[in-house]
Amino acid sequence: MDHVLLKELKEKFNLVFHDVDLLEQAFTHSSYVNEHRYLQLSDNERLEFLGDAVLELAVSKFLYRKYPQVPEGKLTKLRAAIVCEESLAKFAKECRFDQSIRLGKGEEHSGGRNRPALLCDLFEAFLGALYLDQGFEAVETFLEKVVFPKILAGAFSHEMDHKTRLQEVLQRSGDVLIDYRLIKEEGPAHERQFWTQVYFNGEKIGEGQGKSKKLAEQAAAANALNQLLD
Amino acid sequence: MDHVLLKELKEKFNLVFHDVDLLEQAFTHSSYVNEHRYLQLSDNERLEFLGDAVLELAVSKFLYRKYPQVPEGKLTKLRAAIVCEESLAKFAKECRFDQSIRLGKGEEHSGGRNRPALLCDLFEAFLGALYLDQGFEAVETFLEKVVFPKILAGAFSHEMDHKTRLQEVLQRSGDVLIDYRLIKEEGPAHERQFWTQVYFNGEKIGEGQGKSKKLAEQAAAANALNQLLD
Repeated sequence: MDHVLLKELKEKFNLVFHDVDLLEQAFTHSSYVNEHRYLQLSDNERLEFLGDAVLELAVSKFLYRKYPQVPEGKLTKLRAAIVCEESLAKFAKECRFDQSIRLGKGEEHSGGRNRPALLCDLFEAFLGALYLDQGFEAVETFLEKVVFPKILAGAFSHEMDHKTRLQEVLQRSGDVLIDYRLIKEEGPAHERQFWTQVYFNGEKIGEGQGKSKKLAEQAAAANALNQLLD
Repeated sequence: MDHVLLKELKEKFNLVFHDVDLLEQAFTHSSYVNEHRYLQLSDNERLEFLGDAVLELAVSKFLYRKYPQVPEGKLTKLRAAIVCEESLAKFAKECRFDQSIRLGKGEEHSGGRNRPALLCDLFEAFLGALYLDQGFEAVETFLEKVVFPKILAGAFSHEMDHKTRLQEVLQRSGDVLIDYRLIKEEGPAHERQFWTQVYFNGEKIGEGQGKSKKLAEQAAAANALNQLLD
């Protein structure tokens, strides 16, 4: 087993696998298995099949609980933006999983170690292995470090981020009235600027500026959040 | 709350919800909410969002464990055949959930109670509610009654059923060698017939006939299973 991986999992995520074979399988690409048939290894594809569903539920549950007022259509769009090849490949790289996967020579030479589809599968296979080894809550704990903070920071949806978060924060104290007021727009059509203020139960709590009404509202919500959460 | 539903859930599935509001929400279609705005109800769409992912994981885990030798590609196809609108609508009907959903008048008159998409969403929403109310294992227990037996019976894949099942049954006793031998083919191209025998560690355990080599092998596996499981 790759000792760098074991060390990093322990240090970064406080993770120690009971069944290291499972972890090893998650980091074994089919191209490696094909080039070492005599070793009779298993590749990570079945773990990826399982991990895909584990991730889907973990993200769905997180979104369901975190955004109690957001309708299903928006949740589905947001989930699709999170659980997609591009995002998962990034997560895999951030965890430095790309350094530890075992590839065949052909795959290595053709740049497989940086291929988004391969990295995405690797990330899912790792989650599948973690789920089998330690259960669903361990997967959630891992995602709380790697994925969930990015969702809350609005990395996956310009629409969902600041405005939704602001609504979340404010409605903890019951029904709220939040409104955004466009107070000024200036400049020629191709570089027009908008200024917006956000009001909470009639009181101004933030203001922002942007190239569209939407962006100005986002900026105002971000400004309000910064002041509220300080 | 619909007392017939409560009674049937208890009698058929030994299920009693702690939070009956969740169950009620699962059985409330958006058309009903729209026609009764003064009641300030929630429809079942967010629960469906969650339940969709719960079902996906439960089925994935079941397939992963039940078919340890089946490659990822086939598992993915099988999962897609199970977790699809048509199948889920059937499950909803078998559970008689269609009798208990609250619809708006327009939806009712246009036949919504029999619409597959609506029934599919209802089934997923129910699973979402059950998951929130009683956790993942309760969902698995429910599916063990409603869905999993059909998977094992081969209702979702002609290819997966008999041959895979035979492999499952035989490998309980360790590594096995199963081979299918084409022993005869006859007839003109458009109505050709194939005869196959299946061998287990060199011993003939079944035979079958079909319009293609694949179908003949399936028939042979089914024949072997019948004799083995008698």
